[in-house]
Amino acid sequence: MRIKIINPNTTESMTEAIREKALRYARPGTEIVAVNPSTGPASIESYYDEALATIGVLEEVRRGEAEGFDGYAIACYGDPGLYAAREVARAPVVGIGETSMLMACTLGYKFSIITILDRFIGPVDEMVKRYGLTERCASIRVINTHVLDIEKGGEKITRLMIEEGRKAVAEDRAEVLLLGCAGMAGLEESMEEALGVPVIDGIVAAVKMLEGLVDYGKKTSKIHTFRYPEKKVVRGFPTLHGLTR
Amino acid sequence: MRIKIINPNTTESMTEAIREKALRYARPGTEIVAVNPSTGPASIESYYDEALATIGVLEEVRRGEAEGFDGYAIACYGDPGLYAAREVARAPVVGIGETSMLMACTLGYKFSIITILDRFIGPVDEMVKRYGLTERCASIRVINTHVLDIEKGGEKITRLMIEEGRKAVAEDRAEVLLLGCAGMAGLEESMEEALGVPVIDGIVAAVKMLEGLVDYGKKTSKIHTFRYPEKKVVRGFPTLHGLTR
Amino acid sequence: MRIKIINPNTTESMTEAIREKALRYARPGTEIVAVNPSTGPASIESYYDEALATIGVLEEVRRGEAEGFDGYAIACYGDPGLYAAREVARAPVVGIGETSMLMACTLGYKFSIITILDRFIGPVDEMVKRYGLTERCASIRVINTHVLDIEKGGEKITRLMIEEGRKAVAEDRAEVLLLGCAGMAGLEESMEEALGVPVIDGIVAAVKMLEGLVDYGKKTSKIHTFRYPEKKVVRGFPTLHGLTR
Amino acid sequence: MRIKIINPNTTESMTEAIREKALRYARPGTEIVAVNPSTGPASIESYYDEALATIGVLEEVRRGEAEGFDGYAIACYGDPGLYAAREVARAPVVGIGETSMLMACTLGYKFSIITILDRFIGPVDEMVKRYGLTERCASIRVINTHVLDIEKGGEKITRLMIEEGRKAVAEDRAEVLLLGCAGMAGLEESMEEALGVPVIDGIVAAVKMLEGLVDYGKKTSKIHTFRYPEKKVVRGFPTLHGLTR
Amino acid sequence: MRIKIINPNTTESMTEAIREKALRYARPGTEIVAVNPSTGPASIESYYDEALATIGVLEEVRRGEAEGFDGYAIACYGDPGLYAAREVARAPVVGIGETSMLMACTLGYKFSIITILDRFIGPVDEMVKRYGLTERCASIRVINTHVLDIEKGGEKITRLMIEEGRKAVAEDRAEVLLLGCAGMAGLEESMEEALGVPVIDGIVAAVKMLEGLVDYGKKTSKIHTFRYPEKKVVRGFPTLHGLTR
Amino acid sequence: MRIKIINPNTTESMTEAIREKALRYARPGTEIVAVNPSTGPASIESYYDEALATIGVLEEVRRGEAEGFDGYAIACYGDPGLYAAREVARAPVVGIGETSMLMACTLGYKFSIITILDRFIGPVDEMVKRYGLTERCASIRVINTHVLDIEKGGEKITRLMIEEGRKAVAEDRAEVLLLGCAGMAGLEESMEEALGVPVIDGIVAAVKMLEGLVDYGKKTSKIHTFRYPEKKVVRGFPTLHGLTR
Repeated sequence: MRIKIINPNTTESMTEAIREKALRYARPGTEIVAVNPSTGPASIESYYDEALATIGVLEEVRRGEAEGFDGYAIACYGDPGLYAAREVARAPVVGIGETSMLMACTLGYKFSIITILDRFIGPVDEMVKRYGLTERCASIRVINTHVLDIEKGGEKITRLMIEEGRKAVAEDRAEVLLLGCAGMAGLEESMEEALGVPVIDGIVAAVKMLEGLVDYGKKTSKIHTFRYPEKKVVRGFPTLHGLTR
Repeated sequence: MRIKIINPNTTESMTEAIREKALRYARPGTEIVAVNPSTGPASIESYYDEALATIGVLEEVRRGEAEGFDGYAIACYGDPGLYAAREVARAPVVGIGETSMLMACTLGYKFSIITILDRFIGPVDEMVKRYGLTERCASIRVINTHVLDIEKGGEKITRLMIEEGRKAVAEDRAEVLLLGCAGMAGLEESMEEALGVPVIDGIVAAVKMLEGLVDYGKKTSKIHTFRYPEKKVVRGFPTLHGLTR
Repeated sequence: MRIKIINPNTTESMTEAIREKALRYARPGTEIVAVNPSTGPASIESYYDEALATIGVLEEVRRGEAEGFDGYAIACYGDPGLYAAREVARAPVVGIGETSMLMACTLGYKFSIITILDRFIGPVDEMVKRYGLTERCASIRVINTHVLDIEKGGEKITRLMIEEGRKAVAEDRAEVLLLGCAGMAGLEESMEEALGVPVIDGIVAAVKMLEGLVDYGKKTSKIHTFRYPEKKVVRGFPTLHGLTR
Repeated sequence: MRIKIINPNTTESMTEAIREKALRYARPGTEIVAVNPSTGPASIESYYDEALATIGVLEEVRRGEAEGFDGYAIACYGDPGLYAAREVARAPVVGIGETSMLMACTLGYKFSIITILDRFIGPVDEMVKRYGLTERCASIRVINTHVLDIEKGGEKITRLMIEEGRKAVAEDRAEVLLLGCAGMAGLEESMEEALGVPVIDGIVAAVKMLEGLVDYGKKTSKIHTFRYPEKKVVRGFPTLHGLTR
Repeated sequence: MRIKIINPNTTESMTEAIREKALRYARPGTEIVAVNPSTGPASIESYYDEALATIGVLEEVRRGEAEGFDGYAIACYGDPGLYAAREVARAPVVGIGETSMLMACTLGYKFSIITILDRFIGPVDEMVKRYGLTERCASIRVINTHVLDIEKGGEKITRLMIEEGRKAVAEDRAEVLLLGCAGMAGLEESMEEALGVPVIDGIVAAVKMLEGLVDYGKKTSKIHTFRYPEKKVVRGFPTLHGLTR
Repeated sequence: MRIKIINPNTTESMTEAIREKALRYARPGTEIVAVNPSTGPASIESYYDEALATIGVLEEVRRGEAEGFDGYAIACYGDPGLYAAREVARAPVVGIGETSMLMACTLGYKFSIITILDRFIGPVDEMVKRYGLTERCASIRVINTHVLDIEKGGEKITRLMIEEGRKAVAEDRAEVLLLGCAGMAGLEESMEEALGVPVIDGIVAAVKMLEGLVDYGKKTSKIHTFRYPEKKVVRGFPTLHGLTR
């Protein structure tokens, strides 16, 4: 099966890191194509960034549909454009925020998400609510570090993640921890070693969910909410013309 | 005070109708400027349409901030781009979906929203949940008519709206009805006459909320969620460069 | 338009302060009449006080209807008698608790209410739940000061309010703060200066909501919940006879 | 033990019926005193009626405290004045709405309430929400009959109750039915015979809960919410002076 | 009336303590039979323990039905087997967890549960959610002591309970405290003295609820959820054969 | 990897059908072992049946841990014993109810569950609530057929499933349908063909989730809720001795 992983920001080193992480856990028969749009912000840290990134995500899904991909993963924790992408594609589309939470539900009673900046707590909180998982979420914590600084990361980031993870487990009663940024890929091992609880990277969770969906032959429901967009006149966005079927 | 009303779609006749409706209820001292972006879909009926429309909304808010507007209303019932626009502006930004619901809360125990298409029930349901108003919402009903057909509208639309409104009151126990599309502007009078309950057009609700906020000197909180977007490299979107402060 | 603001307690100095606050923010065409009942407690700090105050509120609304007022505001944070008053009046009736929360919803993701006494947290919590706004409320905090001591107030009250406001923003993630007592009118300026977040006095929020409702010609829905009270024999309460239509 | 049952309306025939019902199920050692206030509406069918009735309820509780009663039941389904009465008394105070629901929770997964008028659905719905029992409530249904007509009742009322009860069981999946008006006392037997599900009259539920509380020596918590009212100047309400300790 | 109290664990000294506690508060006419199953764990501190204990609970209910008991109480705070027991019996079945919470609802706005081990917070939290009482629960706290060590108890346990109770009242705003383990029977007196809030032992609450239900003649609803189990082939569990009617 | 699928009932033909279904969708490297306990009911249709079946499930998990399985699926829609099994095992344990819902969340806004008997709606409703997914569940519908009759099934069952599925989509706005009984395995194809929406069998969803968890090396969190059971004396249940570590 062929899976397209879309890094919604335009930082290619992150796309590369995402590809490596996905490849590491994809099973033999799964072909991983990791891309990022040609337009959009270098990192995604606000509703504004998400709005800009969504255009590129939709372009990539559109291209993917033409090329016959079996599924798509949006690899930014806020799942930008996820619902619009589901309208646009027939193949299943998942987000790393969503799938990290769904997987966590099978491993513990409550999970905590450790994400980037104070300002991102609101958007993540809304996302948890959107997915209807508020009761399963023990807390959302932050390391107060920008996405691109996490990527450069190193020891300090690991230390901050372990620190917040420890508080999530001890104070908020989290039983599973989620990496709240695609740039945190790879940190779960040192965190698990230090904290003794499962830590989930949504990139892997998304690949595994897609493998399962494709094995089972399931695609986005086209009844009610996620029908194809209505055909209509659109000004601008030349790369998206024809997207609507 | 100067208020900018942004019709997020690119259909100018709708912008004109919105302007007229706003002017009709704006008080003497309120200057109304109604615009629509130069890019985006002709109507907004899906998450996909909303994603495309959001770019234009953000451009118009950006321009508005340079021109010193006192407040912004996003005049599409799904409130596309509302949270991103709040990040971008210092002046208050409201949506017609949001303000119609807030006003309704003062007039009855439960409200119903009558909107366009079956496919739009999901997005409106999510919006109600996002605003935390699920318990006040009796139902979301549709007339199964496209936005641009509503605009052309006429008798038939009025009849359909009254029919769904009647069911909302009798079967769902709605006490206040909300027009779930900017294109429905003007229908509240015949509906009120037929049904005997208050019917609210979000365009008016938004203007009134903005007048109140500006009179009182209140602006979007810049703590936590709606801080200005982080400065960063953005590829493409030339009209939005410089938006971030 | 003529708006009647009812201070539900019998402390005339508070009525005067409420009138001044309302006048300061009412727009030119709005006539403000501020009153308090001739019966009831000197301040409202419990369910018991609210029960007693409600009789006077209903009397004042009754008189108001005879005099043709365009709208009513109940100026005590617990909104005593609000729902009964809606039954009794045709013109819209709002509470300062309710409208402060509705306005706050347009300015930030979560609000906190800073109110009087520990014992009042329960009633305010119930009120937030009644309005269906629990998810938007970050916290309810108190300065542990009696209403009449707040009115006398001075520096100390301001300091306490800033202190609790700071905790609400930093610890509870509030983005907007609400003055949880009509006696706090006027404190929002020093709080905003100190804390950098919008602070809302429900007196102003109520006036602005009423101005909007009256401009738009909207009145309380008389379907289902807020119909006029049933005609029936009532013993006692001579001032309320004839109230029922 | 001595229990005071307060019929909050001023219809003495209802007080008498309530006394009989309570006596029928009270155990030997329980002395039942049933009263109604000298002021207030002849029946309670709205928030307005509840506000008026609450004054009399508080008077009766005040008198009761002077006379040393062991507990109080408020015998109107809307539980008017319940929370204020808890502040005023040291002995436990329960409502027939509240205790009917609590008892029902032990007999089935979901209960339905069958009450008087369409207009009373809102207040009962709010009460269920206030007690935090929304998830246990299958539905609120009405027979569209005034309280005083129910009391006169007869065959027709029984038939209407069975009809709505049948719908509650079959359509709303209720497993227990609650009589939503003190005037319905006595209907549970024919309903149970016809429908085969437990039917609860809150008058009995309240007596039984009070017997249990008094046996166990438990009284209203005087921490936080239900402390005694603050001492203060109150104008009017001569019968309530001195109530505050 | 004859009430069977089932201690679901196999520690006879606990059964004896439960009997004594029940007898102390049962009223004269109530015959208390306290038993424990012959199989199962010596104490119940996990979902696993609950699963094992449930078999014995069902056996005891089965025997009880043959002997004509009027009601059953399951005397372990997690209410193991409660819903299965309701299917099996016609007479009412209550749990001490459930009834302690229902009684608490009449005495204060919020209750806290003080239970045994950190690991039991999850199961108790789920139970509160199952009963739909999440909004009434201020917190679940633990003394980190095993059930059998509580039984041996002594001064230290009392001190720990008071300490956690104090935090529940001061930090979590609890107004009523619940003993979260049958082995804590008897601690409520010293806790009430120290803390000044009502403290409830579910053993007493269960006896009182059953006395009320039996006085009123109410039994488990046999519609929908709690019908008798379907007749079918069961391998093993010889003591349970014939249980199904 | 080696996955053990436990059919919690004792009907071997169902175990065989479950094995076939799992094998059909397991990927090449996954070894499927399907078993059923030697004790317990022939089918599971009540809380009582679930209680009995849980003992056998725990035995099978215990044996599985000794044999080094990589994961466990409990193949009955009510997920009997799931939480106890998580305590007992280190390898991940999933239920077909749980995983069918989690997978459905990625394919549509709301799902409906079509299950066996009217009496099972309550238990399934509770399970949805337990997993925190109430907001994602459009409805629970039944075909009023016993498990063993479904297994024998044939045309009639298919017709009933399509009929209820059609109502779920049209009336309840379901976008994804879930087979609410392990005995329904195989029906999804005709349902999808007839209804045009994705239909999920939890057996496949569980296998896919386990494959993902094992690929990623994630195991049940042993912090807080799902620690190993405490060591203690247990009477009876000889096959479970030594289970606790």
